Amino acid sequence: MHTTPPRKTTRLRDLIEGPQLGFLMEAHNGLSARIAEEAGFPGVWASGLSISASLGVRDNNEASWTQVLEVVEFMSDAAGVPILLDGDTGFGNFNSVRRLVRKLEQRGVAGVCLEDKLFPKTNSFLKGAAQPLADVEEFCGKVRAAKDAQHCPDFVVVARVESFIAGRGLGEALRRAEAYHRAGADAILIHSARPDPAEILAFRSEWGDRLPVVIVPTKYYRTPTRVFRDAGFAVVIWANHLMRSALASMQKTAREIYTRECLHTVEPAVAPLEEVFRLQGAAELERAEKRYLPARDAPALAPPDGPRYVEAGANGVLVS
Amino acid sequence: MHTTPPRKTTRLRDLIEGPQLGFLMEAHNGLSARIAEEAGFPGVWASGLSISASLGVRDNNEASWTQVLEVVEFMSDAAGVPILLDGDTGFGNFNSVRRLVRKLEQRGVAGVCLEDKLFPKTNSFLKGAAQPLADVEEFCGKVRAAKDAQHCPDFVVVARVESFIAGRGLGEALRRAEAYHRAGADAILIHSARPDPAEILAFRSEWGDRLPVVIVPTKYYRTPTRVFRDAGFAVVIWANHLMRSALASMQKTAREIYTRECLHTVEPAVAPLEEVFRLQGAAELERAEKRYLPARDAPALAPPDGPRYVEAGANGVLVS
Amino acid sequence: MHTTPPRKTTRLRDLIEGPQLGFLMEAHNGLSARIAEEAGFPGVWASGLSISASLGVRDNNEASWTQVLEVVEFMSDAAGVPILLDGDTGFGNFNSVRRLVRKLEQRGVAGVCLEDKLFPKTNSFLKGAAQPLADVEEFCGKVRAAKDAQHCPDFVVVARVESFIAGRGLGEALRRAEAYHRAGADAILIHSARPDPAEILAFRSEWGDRLPVVIVPTKYYRTPTRVFRDAGFAVVIWANHLMRSALASMQKTAREIYTRECLHTVEPAVAPLEEVFRLQGAAELERAEKRYLPARDAPALAPPDGPRYVEAGANGVLVS
Amino acid sequence: MHTTPPRKTTRLRDLIEGPQLGFLMEAHNGLSARIAEEAGFPGVWASGLSISASLGVRDNNEASWTQVLEVVEFMSDAAGVPILLDGDTGFGNFNSVRRLVRKLEQRGVAGVCLEDKLFPKTNSFLKGAAQPLADVEEFCGKVRAAKDAQHCPDFVVVARVESFIAGRGLGEALRRAEAYHRAGADAILIHSARPDPAEILAFRSEWGDRLPVVIVPTKYYRTPTRVFRDAGFAVVIWANHLMRSALASMQKTAREIYTRECLHTVEPAVAPLEEVFRLQGAAELERAEKRYLPARDAPALAPPDGPRYVEAGANGVLVS
Repeated sequence: MHTTPPRKTTRLRDLIEGPQLGFLMEAHNGLSARIAEEAGFPGVWASGLSISASLGVRDNNEASWTQVLEVVEFMSDAAGVPILLDGDTGFGNFNSVRRLVRKLEQRGVAGVCLEDKLFPKTNSFLKGAAQPLADVEEFCGKVRAAKDAQHCPDFVVVARVESFIAGRGLGEALRRAEAYHRAGADAILIHSARPDPAEILAFRSEWGDRLPVVIVPTKYYRTPTRVFRDAGFAVVIWANHLMRSALASMQKTAREIYTRECLHTVEPAVAPLEEVFRLQGAAELERAEKRYLPARDAPALAPPDGPRYVEAGANGVLVS
Repeated sequence: MHTTPPRKTTRLRDLIEGPQLGFLMEAHNGLSARIAEEAGFPGVWASGLSISASLGVRDNNEASWTQVLEVVEFMSDAAGVPILLDGDTGFGNFNSVRRLVRKLEQRGVAGVCLEDKLFPKTNSFLKGAAQPLADVEEFCGKVRAAKDAQHCPDFVVVARVESFIAGRGLGEALRRAEAYHRAGADAILIHSARPDPAEILAFRSEWGDRLPVVIVPTKYYRTPTRVFRDAGFAVVIWANHLMRSALASMQKTAREIYTRECLHTVEPAVAPLEEVFRLQGAAELERAEKRYLPARDAPALAPPDGPRYVEAGANGVLVS
Repeated sequence: MHTTPPRKTTRLRDLIEGPQLGFLMEAHNGLSARIAEEAGFPGVWASGLSISASLGVRDNNEASWTQVLEVVEFMSDAAGVPILLDGDTGFGNFNSVRRLVRKLEQRGVAGVCLEDKLFPKTNSFLKGAAQPLADVEEFCGKVRAAKDAQHCPDFVVVARVESFIAGRGLGEALRRAEAYHRAGADAILIHSARPDPAEILAFRSEWGDRLPVVIVPTKYYRTPTRVFRDAGFAVVIWANHLMRSALASMQKTAREIYTRECLHTVEPAVAPLEEVFRLQGAAELERAEKRYLPARDAPALAPPDGPRYVEAGANGVLVS
Repeated sequence: MHTTPPRKTTRLRDLIEGPQLGFLMEAHNGLSARIAEEAGFPGVWASGLSISASLGVRDNNEASWTQVLEVVEFMSDAAGVPILLDGDTGFGNFNSVRRLVRKLEQRGVAGVCLEDKLFPKTNSFLKGAAQPLADVEEFCGKVRAAKDAQHCPDFVVVARVESFIAGRGLGEALRRAEAYHRAGADAILIHSARPDPAEILAFRSEWGDRLPVVIVPTKYYRTPTRVFRDAGFAVVIWANHLMRSALASMQKTAREIYTRECLHTVEPAVAPLEEVFRLQGAAELERAEKRYLPARDAPALAPPDGPRYVEAGANGVLVS
């Protein structure tokens, strides 16, 4: 937060407001956030679905907002790139949103996306689930509260419009987006569960350039990315694919080890231990131990009187 | 905890004390625990390395013991099979161990493994890292404290002998194991970082049947499992392979999406959304909503006076 | 949970269903819970107002439900008497309530009180604040969900009727109480903000003995307790007085130390350090150290080879 | 953190380095921190003893370091004055200290005090308890690590010398203080359990002005403050008196309510509810509701199609 390179908030804002189509990769814990960063992504989407799925709970706010906060804090510590948190509905009312924004800024999270549904939320892709929308004015109050609560000038508040998810038409989507724009949102996320980009393209076309528009092509994944680029979208979120990749891979590995009762065939397919240690930053700790721990064989400061007590360091303290 | 099938503690004890070679599959969050269970494994190893790696921190007790406790609580809620927690050194002294055991029992965790190293710990496979061992008597105090603290009669305390890791000989391994046995341990985990099973076989041969012996063939993974079975080991732990599988898979997926800027080629390789929802238990919630939420179009109990207030349910409350 | 004396849940149920007027004393952390128990109270009311006030936040669900859960876990560990948690509105919908009940049971909390207002809640005594009520059917779903979720047969679910707080009449209070009764509530808490007991006496008189009735005479504190006893109430909750006592006392002490710049006059009025240590259970730890730590001057098991490493115990490990 | 008045870190540093004798008042939760601030104190001492006692656990690191972190975060949010955390031994080794410092800075905590004992720690005033000291070089590594980890230039690291507590002489106290000074400590806390100030005065006299010296006159509370001022100490910590005041007051109140079975005599002695609400900041929320919530009777933006859904705000959403 105090280094000379641009703050994470500034980098996320530049990504959203810049002339190029930007990309955010989903992550759901510190490990996946670091992986997303190493792959080259300029930012991370801390997905509510992925975080809840990896915790083993449902995407219905079963984890409390402080449990989500702890996950995203680990992510923020692990990754040098900015994180945009999928903040669901803000986990309550405008006051909940204010607290959330302050806590996110403290943890170095660069922005939050708020969606105009009801707490507790329902995943937008759950078939047959009702997708009731928030009252527009009440949601605008949340957006205003978020913007007023932020201390970092570049903290990003994205307003997610769920009109299409709820089966409403383009008109309502535009009216809501405009209301959220006036309330101070920095970008609009227009969501769609259709297998084609018709809804989001129609929205983009009508919306113009009033605010950057973010999309999540989970369902219309077949659409070539140049279509999004040509249409002038600001950011594409690859919203849950690291979690889904991990899930499929773990299922396969678990079945194979269970069936074969051995590791032999699995070993080449899993990451080497050294790669785990590298991603955890073991090398930095090794250097730090040299710097901060007493040399193990060097004579320590002699105790002036009485017996000598010791305390264990990361690599222990040898008592000669 | 109150159902008629055997408690998780009893099932873990049976696994360890039974005549067959048993297997525990590593998991590090609710999702991987459920995957391990679905693959058929009768129990889960909540690995310290995997938990720390997935959180994005080092395997040096960077996560606090209550953060680890929260991870294993999510795992215990997600999986019906018993969990043995890799409890490192117990996160402090005998008193820390007592608190840990009580908290684990409350969360439905079936057992804990304590290792005879120093807090904060160092991963046993880190090359070049010092691996100082605990004082034997002090560690025996931890084992006794753990056993005295448990309420569930079948809660399992495994004592992990790190003598080979520390470069000591078989003699010390046996002396330590015997001391931990006398202190009340339910099983011995004998650890080795060699690429072959020489150390653990030597130990097993000398040790006899005084207590069940648990092994972790991460480094000697080429050894056929029948060798372990023939030697009379009690349990084999596949100690970190779901995490390493997820790691490799996420790296590959992240690189591919980053390079191609699209989801098209990745989609067939990742788990479908429906599989995510299934593992999260979405179907149960759908049924529960029918049971506990008001019928959405049915007339609610008419308010006796004044206006009608509503509250959002999981699928919202429609106001006519 | 596994000892021979009655479970905490059974003791709370007996208190509520017994023929005598029972009393619950408010507490808001482990220390106050232990103090309430030592004073003789058979149970503790974990007050939402007091917990939030002591944390330094507002009684509007600013603390997350897992933060409240952690507070009540410390309380449950500290006190041997049963705890009834002020569960506000259940912190969400019926599904939130199910999770809450399971987590409370794991922590040894004996019951929960749910109120028929909206999340995030508003304190019932805040003048001028709107006090919108929950939809009756939706709230009944929460009560049913709570009862279905409990494992301990005696876990107590109290339904709190806020009709009077919201300015509604006796008729609605009775209709709501009856609906919650049919939904499975174990007791009704009838709340009133009047300075006299008129509302709660009218309710009690009309309600009869369908379910035990709990009251909170914070505002009608002048009413003699025999009035409550004669009217046949089941339990009186002294709802926030330890917190308010601590608050007043700390203000006085802080001002005095600030003004006088010394401790001299304050010392006789504050608890001695020995009393703090006694309430923390220091004596038990001292005994445990004798039991579990190596005798400090006794020769430890000699290390078979190489240097001797040590680990700090609660009172350290002396290295000769 | 981003406002124009001096940062909390700067204010704590000024307090310690300034020419006047400064005072820090103990607090242990958000409420007591706010009370200390309102009484006029320029800073707060987040006492390990008081925090553990109020949680209901022992002062032996029974609460994890992240549980302590959460307490101090509530305190930091509640109080505008800087907080110096009693960081015990740093909760582990130098690496634990680095993480702690970073987390404290994120939460707006202005400094940390580290003591040269062993983890898990023992309260310095516990009679008969062993008070083993840390190895000097190992502890110096912690101090260096803390200083290197801080981002805010004014973050304060106080090194607490426990030599007198451990029964060592002045010579060792001075040698340790000098070693910690060279390691980068910003101030020395010299601790004593004697009922008179002989030890700390002797230390101050020999030490000179190499670094500011902080004292904790819990045991030598009879010493007039002018003695400390004349001797040139930098800061006096009133280390546990709000907690002990609350404890005594709650015991008295609990006993009285239990005995009398009524609130009548207690009411005048406890803080009024309005004072609780004032300290919680209820007025600010009331203003914020006017700003962020829809006017309750105003017609909301008409839904363009279909039924109207609502979400509860802090004071609810009325649906006409």
